[in-house]
Amino acid sequence: MMALAEELYPICRSITGNGVRQTLAILQRHLPLEVNEVPSGTEVLDWVVPREWNIRDAYIARQDGTHIVDFGASNLHLVQYSQPIDMIMPLAQLRPHLHSLPDTPDWIPYRTSYYTENWGFCLTHRQLSSLADELYRVVIDADLSPGHLTYGELVIPGGSKETVLLSCHICHPSLANDNLSGIAVATMLAHHVESLRPRYTYRLLFIPGTIGSLTWLARNEDKVDSITHGLVLSCLGDAGCMTYKQSRRGNAAIDQIVAHVLRHDDVAHRIRPFIPYGYDERQYCSPGFDLPVGCLMRTPNGEYPEYHSSADNLSLLRPECLGHSLGVLRRIVAVIEGNEVYRSRNPKGEPQLGRRGLYATMGGQRAASYDQVALLWVLNLADGRHSLLDTAERAGVPFAAIRAAADALLATNLLEPATVQPCASSKDP
Amino acid sequence: MMALAEELYPICRSITGNGVRQTLAILQRHLPLEVNEVPSGTEVLDWVVPREWNIRDAYIARQDGTHIVDFGASNLHLVQYSQPIDMIMPLAQLRPHLHSLPDTPDWIPYRTSYYTENWGFCLTHRQLSSLADELYRVVIDADLSPGHLTYGELVIPGGSKETVLLSCHICHPSLANDNLSGIAVATMLAHHVESLRPRYTYRLLFIPGTIGSLTWLARNEDKVDSITHGLVLSCLGDAGCMTYKQSRRGNAAIDQIVAHVLRHDDVAHRIRPFIPYGYDERQYCSPGFDLPVGCLMRTPNGEYPEYHSSADNLSLLRPECLGHSLGVLRRIVAVIEGNEVYRSRNPKGEPQLGRRGLYATMGGQRAASYDQVALLWVLNLADGRHSLLDTAERAGVPFAAIRAAADALLATNLLEPATVQPCASSKDP
Amino acid sequence: MMALAEELYPICRSITGNGVRQTLAILQRHLPLEVNEVPSGTEVLDWVVPREWNIRDAYIARQDGTHIVDFGASNLHLVQYSQPIDMIMPLAQLRPHLHSLPDTPDWIPYRTSYYTENWGFCLTHRQLSSLADELYRVVIDADLSPGHLTYGELVIPGGSKETVLLSCHICHPSLANDNLSGIAVATMLAHHVESLRPRYTYRLLFIPGTIGSLTWLARNEDKVDSITHGLVLSCLGDAGCMTYKQSRRGNAAIDQIVAHVLRHDDVAHRIRPFIPYGYDERQYCSPGFDLPVGCLMRTPNGEYPEYHSSADNLSLLRPECLGHSLGVLRRIVAVIEGNEVYRSRNPKGEPQLGRRGLYATMGGQRAASYDQVALLWVLNLADGRHSLLDTAERAGVPFAAIRAAADALLATNLLEPATVQPCASSKDP
Repeated sequence: MMALAEELYPICRSITGNGVRQTLAILQRHLPLEVNEVPSGTEVLDWVVPREWNIRDAYIARQDGTHIVDFGASNLHLVQYSQPIDMIMPLAQLRPHLHSLPDTPDWIPYRTSYYTENWGFCLTHRQLSSLADELYRVVIDADLSPGHLTYGELVIPGGSKETVLLSCHICHPSLANDNLSGIAVATMLAHHVESLRPRYTYRLLFIPGTIGSLTWLARNEDKVDSITHGLVLSCLGDAGCMTYKQSRRGNAAIDQIVAHVLRHDDVAHRIRPFIPYGYDERQYCSPGFDLPVGCLMRTPNGEYPEYHSSADNLSLLRPECLGHSLGVLRRIVAVIEGNEVYRSRNPKGEPQLGRRGLYATMGGQRAASYDQVALLWVLNLADGRHSLLDTAERAGVPFAAIRAAADALLATNLLEPATVQPCASSKDP
Repeated sequence: MMALAEELYPICRSITGNGVRQTLAILQRHLPLEVNEVPSGTEVLDWVVPREWNIRDAYIARQDGTHIVDFGASNLHLVQYSQPIDMIMPLAQLRPHLHSLPDTPDWIPYRTSYYTENWGFCLTHRQLSSLADELYRVVIDADLSPGHLTYGELVIPGGSKETVLLSCHICHPSLANDNLSGIAVATMLAHHVESLRPRYTYRLLFIPGTIGSLTWLARNEDKVDSITHGLVLSCLGDAGCMTYKQSRRGNAAIDQIVAHVLRHDDVAHRIRPFIPYGYDERQYCSPGFDLPVGCLMRTPNGEYPEYHSSADNLSLLRPECLGHSLGVLRRIVAVIEGNEVYRSRNPKGEPQLGRRGLYATMGGQRAASYDQVALLWVLNLADGRHSLLDTAERAGVPFAAIRAAADALLATNLLEPATVQPCASSKDP
Repeated sequence: MMALAEELYPICRSITGNGVRQTLAILQRHLPLEVNEVPSGTEVLDWVVPREWNIRDAYIARQDGTHIVDFGASNLHLVQYSQPIDMIMPLAQLRPHLHSLPDTPDWIPYRTSYYTENWGFCLTHRQLSSLADELYRVVIDADLSPGHLTYGELVIPGGSKETVLLSCHICHPSLANDNLSGIAVATMLAHHVESLRPRYTYRLLFIPGTIGSLTWLARNEDKVDSITHGLVLSCLGDAGCMTYKQSRRGNAAIDQIVAHVLRHDDVAHRIRPFIPYGYDERQYCSPGFDLPVGCLMRTPNGEYPEYHSSADNLSLLRPECLGHSLGVLRRIVAVIEGNEVYRSRNPKGEPQLGRRGLYATMGGQRAASYDQVALLWVLNLADGRHSLLDTAERAGVPFAAIRAAADALLATNLLEPATVQPCASSKDP
């Protein structure tokens, strides 16, 4: 995953433009992504797809021609969606267009102005402070003109039309944790899911933030109802502990599933309630959709110092953390896939497990083994009203133990599927 | 409010009689109170309006004529509803009719005997202990005869028939915190409500405790169903922290509202569950009515040492505490009035706030501003199922911030009223 | 209760056989038990009543005839349901059939092999370690042949068909706390219940564990629906604190009742959620029955060191603990019997208690007395939706205080029974 992040890092992505296309082309070497192009001006819900922005060069130069700020050095130097300009101006006129971070004077901030006509440069506060009161030439050689919004989509079909949505934003330029980490983890997760021949259909979106999810939602309203679980993936490579931000519902199956997996993970984690600020879950969880979509991160947006600055670079990513994030997601997928509802074929009294080779033959021991208790829990709650995850939660054991017990009971014909409805807890209370 | 309390303090009020009339006449200089007179003997629910009690003079005198206890010195000296008497008796015969507070030997207790024929005097324990074993003349020059029960009522009409009930007891003689404080705060609150041109109708009751609320309920059963919120006001002038005693329902809109206002107040407070002992909420919350009426106090009845004694005098009242109590009540009224339910006109995805001048134009900042998050919360929960107070609670911000955000969204036509039902949470679960 | 335990202690009980018959015959001297005999081979739910096992003698002897392990010394020496054998074998062949407890080398374990054909001996680890590598004669003189499963049943009829099930297992040989304690306490409790002329029907089962409850359930499916409360009684004589294991429902009336009684008991206690491992509650709470049956114990199965070993002998029982357990059960029965639902005849406002001699006549005291507050609570919640136990819980006082208040109010005709349904909280949520 580090290699993929390193390859994608230098590209200047934005919410539209060739950087996005380049990024998706690289991802297509790993995944059979479908790339969609939506024309500028297309109405998407309350919004309109903006003009496409492509940048060739940008700099601020002294009168002697020395470039003091140069897009070539870092694509963060330019405020995204800056309009073309080529002007000579005094510092006083330039100053309102310059952005820096006084508290971290060696970092370049990341700024955007997608929907307001503007231009600007971002630079270290040290650079900014050193600017003399002279004339500067300001050059932004950019196109901001009708084009397309580009996004990638991958559908991994499953036994059911019910769909797990996995969404990550691809609109950030050279920022590593936010969100090359999410892109890299999603790519590897897609490989894993394909290998599973899954029960659910999986839909992966590689989209520009906000306008991308709005565009996808506007074009796919008919598919929205089939989304039974969803996760936005971002900031998955830093050293912080895992953070799960719940869906708006707070009690959706995905909320129960992720909390369970994290609770049974070895390391600390955070569960946070939904707030309507963050990534594309804002759109998926808007009241007209209210999809069961949470957001999985390590350190959340805005909470690590390097966030939205040049310090969110490749050195912030830790391979073992990317790996751990992927591992958590694989376990989440395992629960999504395995979380079925069964009914006991012998609901009155316990069935005689010993006769079926499922029980210790010598009685009188102090306590039943872990495995035998798991069998008893599955049988006891196999009433068509408890999912296996409900059972694991009530038993206080990892889902995998309950799934294994259910498999043993299925093999001896003691269980039957209860309904086609996969998750008893996926409905609003 | 201190001036009003000072003016009312010397009057000898009881559950009936001229002290109540005098009190209401003074209040009528401030408010257009309607004064009601209900004849003795009127059946009110399980009770009967008692005879009217008026007292001219009362004393205990030595044989030499010296008054050792004199009603003129403090109207607490006489047990309320004492029957007329003029007798000479030895200490042994008098003693069972004398009441004192051994633990606070300089305070005179407050005692009543409304519904049992009796007479008695209250005096300091120091006085009581000094009484010699001699003959005493006991004089109570009182009338206890058919008359009326008197109470005051003020209706401030609002846009809706739905009514906020505000009730305070006016039956205590010279006791300041219990309940001249409540009377004074209610009077000022009524002025404030009148100035609001309120959405709800407000009904203020100035009534004798227990028999007054029973009488009002008996005479107004047809109005009971329109009461959607209510508060009993008492003990609002001492230095203790605010205490809210919940309605019997415990989850009525008023319970949510008061808890919210107190939680976002600067100072400590207490929320207590309903108990069927206290003030007139006992009657409003009896099972046959079960009205959504809580009780707002500072230090509750029985919990401050001066309670029901001569030490509950004007020096116990603090002007800044009366003012704080009034401020809390004004904020409660603001929530009652402003707690509407809206529906987003753009429920699918977020509406584009920037286009409407409601969003920062420069993106990429670490965090959204407080105001912008409030806008997002209102939009996210504007689904016709969440009141603005529900939204404030979930967002963890004061109601006023959410109300302001809703107003901004209404001004840009992004919201519409959801239903005529004002409070989603005002119903029993 | 100690005398009964002492009398029963030496008998070699198992899940079938003459030890059970002998035990029930002794109990019949105390209670009019009905003894049931169910033939081997009878199908009971998923199980089959096994052959009957009776043991005459068993020993392991050296070649010189010395008995080194002898059933006559302790009936724990033999693995229950061991098949007949008379063989000479070397230690290597004998060894897999010997069971000991290495951590407590002077205790004999208790082992069973009801449903797998096997034989074995249990001995102290000290004995086992001292066995020389020589030839041993192994003799088990037992019958394992078609016969009957035997259990005792006592019905104490009440005013209603609604039934309280009390169940204890009688299949353990010389183990005192598990479960002579439960048998003794149940016997005394039955006497107490008979003396009450109870409102509910009580059904006591003295049954072999697992197969006994399965057999009873299979033969009495028509009676299952009338069970409104139930307790399994076991391990009630040790010095540990009371432990209540909730029913599978977790919120059944019995769960509320036992928790209330224990909370208002003087000493510490434990409330545990249901788990599908333990005693016969496993069968009563299987999903096809899901009866409101909890389990009352002192130290639970498996949690005291002497459990299922020769150290669970009469010295583990404390008379005062047996007595305390019985006292708790009597209070539980008192709540079951007294937990009615009333409706106030004067629901609008408080009725005038003073007129009926139920209220202090002198007003103005700092606080109402405990008894008066209990009266007010009963009246306030007498709305046909709260049981007296709900009222006690909300008031935070022991059930007995609320029951006494209700009796006083019934005596003055202020209450009436609400419905025939005894416990508002006995239904699933």
